Amino acid sequence: MPLSPPVLDRLRTLFPGDALLTAPADCAPYGRDDSKREALPDAVVLPTTHAQVLDLVRLCREHRLPLFARGRGTGTTGAAVPLGGGLVVGFERMNKILAIDADNRVAVVEPGVLNGDLQAAVAAHGFFWPPDPASAATCTVGGNIACNAGGPRAVKHGATRDNVLAVRAVAGSGEDFRFGKATSKAATGYDLARLMVGSEGTLALVTEATLKLVPLASARATLRATYVDIETAAAAVARIMAQPVTPCALEFMDDEALRLARLHGGEAIPVAGALLLIEVDGEADALPAAAEALAHAARGAGLIDLAIASDPRDVEAIWAARKALSPSLRSIAPKKINEDVVVPVSRLPALVAGLKAISARHGIPIVNFGHAGNGNVHVNLLYHPDDPAQAAQAPACLSAVFDLVLSLDGTLSGEHGIGLAKRPFMRRALDPVAIELMRRIKTQFDPDGILNPGKLLPD
Amino acid sequence: MPLSPPVLDRLRTLFPGDALLTAPADCAPYGRDDSKREALPDAVVLPTTHAQVLDLVRLCREHRLPLFARGRGTGTTGAAVPLGGGLVVGFERMNKILAIDADNRVAVVEPGVLNGDLQAAVAAHGFFWPPDPASAATCTVGGNIACNAGGPRAVKHGATRDNVLAVRAVAGSGEDFRFGKATSKAATGYDLARLMVGSEGTLALVTEATLKLVPLASARATLRATYVDIETAAAAVARIMAQPVTPCALEFMDDEALRLARLHGGEAIPVAGALLLIEVDGEADALPAAAEALAHAARGAGLIDLAIASDPRDVEAIWAARKALSPSLRSIAPKKINEDVVVPVSRLPALVAGLKAISARHGIPIVNFGHAGNGNVHVNLLYHPDDPAQAAQAPACLSAVFDLVLSLDGTLSGEHGIGLAKRPFMRRALDPVAIELMRRIKTQFDPDGILNPGKLLPD
Ligand SMILES: Cc1cc2nc3c(=O)[nH]c(=O)nc-3n(C[C@H](O)[C@H](O)[C@H](O)COP(=O)(O)OP(=O)(O)OC[C@H]3O[C@@H](n4cnc5c(N)ncnc54)[C@H](O)[C@@H]3O)c2cc1C
Ligand SMILES: Cc1cc2nc3c(=O)[nH]c(=O)nc-3n(C[C@H](O)[C@H](O)[C@H](O)COP(=O)(O)OP(=O)(O)OC[C@H]3O[C@@H](n4cnc5c(N)ncnc54)[C@H](O)[C@@H]3O)c2cc1C
Repeated sequence: MPLSPPVLDRLRTLFPGDALLTAPADCAPYGRDDSKREALPDAVVLPTTHAQVLDLVRLCREHRLPLFARGRGTGTTGAAVPLGGGLVVGFERMNKILAIDADNRVAVVEPGVLNGDLQAAVAAHGFFWPPDPASAATCTVGGNIACNAGGPRAVKHGATRDNVLAVRAVAGSGEDFRFGKATSKAATGYDLARLMVGSEGTLALVTEATLKLVPLASARATLRATYVDIETAAAAVARIMAQPVTPCALEFMDDEALRLARLHGGEAIPVAGALLLIEVDGEADALPAAAEALAHAARGAGLIDLAIASDPRDVEAIWAARKALSPSLRSIAPKKINEDVVVPVSRLPALVAGLKAISARHGIPIVNFGHAGNGNVHVNLLYHPDDPAQAAQAPACLSAVFDLVLSLDGTLSGEHGIGLAKRPFMRRALDPVAIELMRRIKTQFDPDGILNPGKLLPD
Repeated sequence: MPLSPPVLDRLRTLFPGDALLTAPADCAPYGRDDSKREALPDAVVLPTTHAQVLDLVRLCREHRLPLFARGRGTGTTGAAVPLGGGLVVGFERMNKILAIDADNRVAVVEPGVLNGDLQAAVAAHGFFWPPDPASAATCTVGGNIACNAGGPRAVKHGATRDNVLAVRAVAGSGEDFRFGKATSKAATGYDLARLMVGSEGTLALVTEATLKLVPLASARATLRATYVDIETAAAAVARIMAQPVTPCALEFMDDEALRLARLHGGEAIPVAGALLLIEVDGEADALPAAAEALAHAARGAGLIDLAIASDPRDVEAIWAARKALSPSLRSIAPKKINEDVVVPVSRLPALVAGLKAISARHGIPIVNFGHAGNGNVHVNLLYHPDDPAQAAQAPACLSAVFDLVLSLDGTLSGEHGIGLAKRPFMRRALDPVAIELMRRIKTQFDPDGILNPGKLLPD
């Protein structure tokens, strides 16, 4: 059902010039995300002000038009895909940093600011914003909020939810509100700001956010530890997390991930059952003691080798192992299902062992790496869609992965969210009453269900 | 309206023996909290299991009976007072620590566990739970969750909201649910666990919580800095918070607070315009450098004196100034209105200056101290209720305090919550749409409004 002429007229008035796109060729790029799913929206609008967003939501509610928020479409779950058609509201032009307030350690931004642009701007004041997805250069703060984005720094500083203090937003009801203050503490009512985080554009459109900044450390040291197997590496992770020096990154790669990284990244990348990258930051004076505390915790049964680097080039070599991974994954199989499950840290060995068994059973290679300190594992199912046996196995294999994760008391996603991709598994993962309460909350914010219909919550 | 015989019968079956109190003399102690407000409940029940709580809520819903959750009544806002009568459910017997899981840095507890008992139990494993209210020995984890309790450590580790990973709860609808996992990260649906934090028993009764633990540091250093006035002290707070060594406590006292503390605590307590207590923890090796970084930030215009102590007795002397305060407050005026407003850190000087003006205008002494690193100020209005002039001025004085705080972009409470005491100011403090959304959320969890009626949300 295309847009009616009166609606189109209203949209043209609200979004003059190139702020409204209706030609399919112009709209198509706004219909995809990194999940490779796509759908053609009826139109795309590119607001520059809160007032426009408010008018837009009211118009959509009046006409029961589905409305899909979009940052930059780097989401991996299809959360921004306008399934079934409707309007896409792209926030790319609401990209102003409104304030950087060093005294209060906050930044106030429009939602379309790129994470990387924000980091550069606040770094000039000696700060960073903790969420640091690998996609930082191309994803937006609005998308980070909607997905509760994370990254390596979350192990020390939390993910997006822990670093958003206040929001301005327009609910699907067509009502706009502010909640929260530029303070690191508050006990004044239900926390609507944190409720927005992770809600994937299904409750309200965020038009402004007040973000908590953290001072940049002046120095950093990186340790690379290899272990005979994932069990001993996971035991080291537990030891590291149980002592008082919290690392600012604690990443891991399993044996298969290392093998692939070595294939592409060269022989500097070690052969081992598992590798940990452990990073610590702080004042230069304090760093040797902190690095030694981490090294001490990293040592133990199963350790093959431990290298401490503080020279930037050595550090680069250590991270190279991790960075060599993405290109090598692509090379072994054209199709990749990339999940980001999370389990309690102590269940990492059982998770990786279980994934190996699932991989063997379904004949689909699985490569694992991720944020070990949070128990957050990027599980990559690699297969050839042209191979009918593999293509047929993929869904069952994925389903088995989630069953395994849930049996280990973990959950579907650590930082990517649910979107379309994981909706079918929500009933397995969550308490039915919790889902029902979420559905009721959704109805209160968005009574006609116009915001991002068909996402996050199961049917 | 007393309880009907059939309801009493059902209660007796559900809560045999001394788990049901009906005699007014037995019930009265369960009708007060630290706000000095009180009301007599019709009965008090003391469950020991989740199943009992579930049955209780269903019974109350069936009969539209008001139900008031209670930890240990240390709340300062009247949040636990059963205004209008009904049932009090006291969680004091659900006081088991169900698990301390060092590998995953979590504890699982029943809601009636005392904060101090939890701290002692997890300390034996080398951990602490960040919320550390001064009332730790006598308040419960359930109360901490319901109020989003804080304390000095919040400046480094956040308040309760940042340290609760999962809950089990019974909504006012009579439905029970679990939400969250023992993982430090998750992006799987709307965050119902964080929504419980700060909801003051108005949405659901929490029957179990999974808490995030933090490793105890092995050493600690304390700095005492005095300044000529609050402006220069606040500038030092901003400098301290803008450098990378985050203190584990950053407390302040204004001139009047110091004067009173000195009166009672002796001449070791300095005379100054303002005092900062700055604490840093970490590994013993790293501590001197960290303390020096903080000392460097504390130095600047207006500094009178800076003392670094790491000997426990010196540290004790520094904290003595702060501890001498409570008894001395009581001595100058029998009645104390204790607020815990919060403002952006940079507004602390304007807040303290404004409070002095309000104090002069209303003829009511105001003494200020608190958690400077969070901009969280305990504002104490001291007056004689028998002095008709002062008693008449008190409400207008309090109202002026909140107007000042809101004009400085702050909010009503940093860690004590709203309860009865601050309800009349909620409309001033919050966006009307935000209040309306909270009300709608309340209706979804508690359709008949049986849970803690008349609290938190304004009429
Ligand atoms: C190469 C690559 C690496 C990645 N690495 C990481 C990583 O390390 N960690 C991590 O967490 N993620 C990672 N991601 C995932 C992705 O980048 C994040 O989820 C990011 O937060 C999405 O931002 P976006 O602007 O692209 O949002 P989009 O994909 O456009 O949208 C995502 C969701 O946000 C909603 N949304 C967007 N803006 C708003 C708004 N203003 N108001 C309300 N809802 C809104 C959309 O409706 C949608 O539901 C990676 C992705 C790629 C492609
Ligand atoms: C001397 C003193 C010092 C204090 N210092 C601090 C401080 O430094 N920082 C700070 O933050 N606070 C402080 N407080 C305030 C108070 O101790 C906290 O708010 C504490 O969290 C209340 O816990 P409680 O168990 O006494 O709760 P109560 O007072 O019994 O109840 C408080 C609220 O919690 C609800 N509630 C209790 N249990 C549950 C449950 N299981 N499920 C749902 N709702 C529940 C009640 O309904 C009520 O709304 C102080 C109080 C005193 C008296």
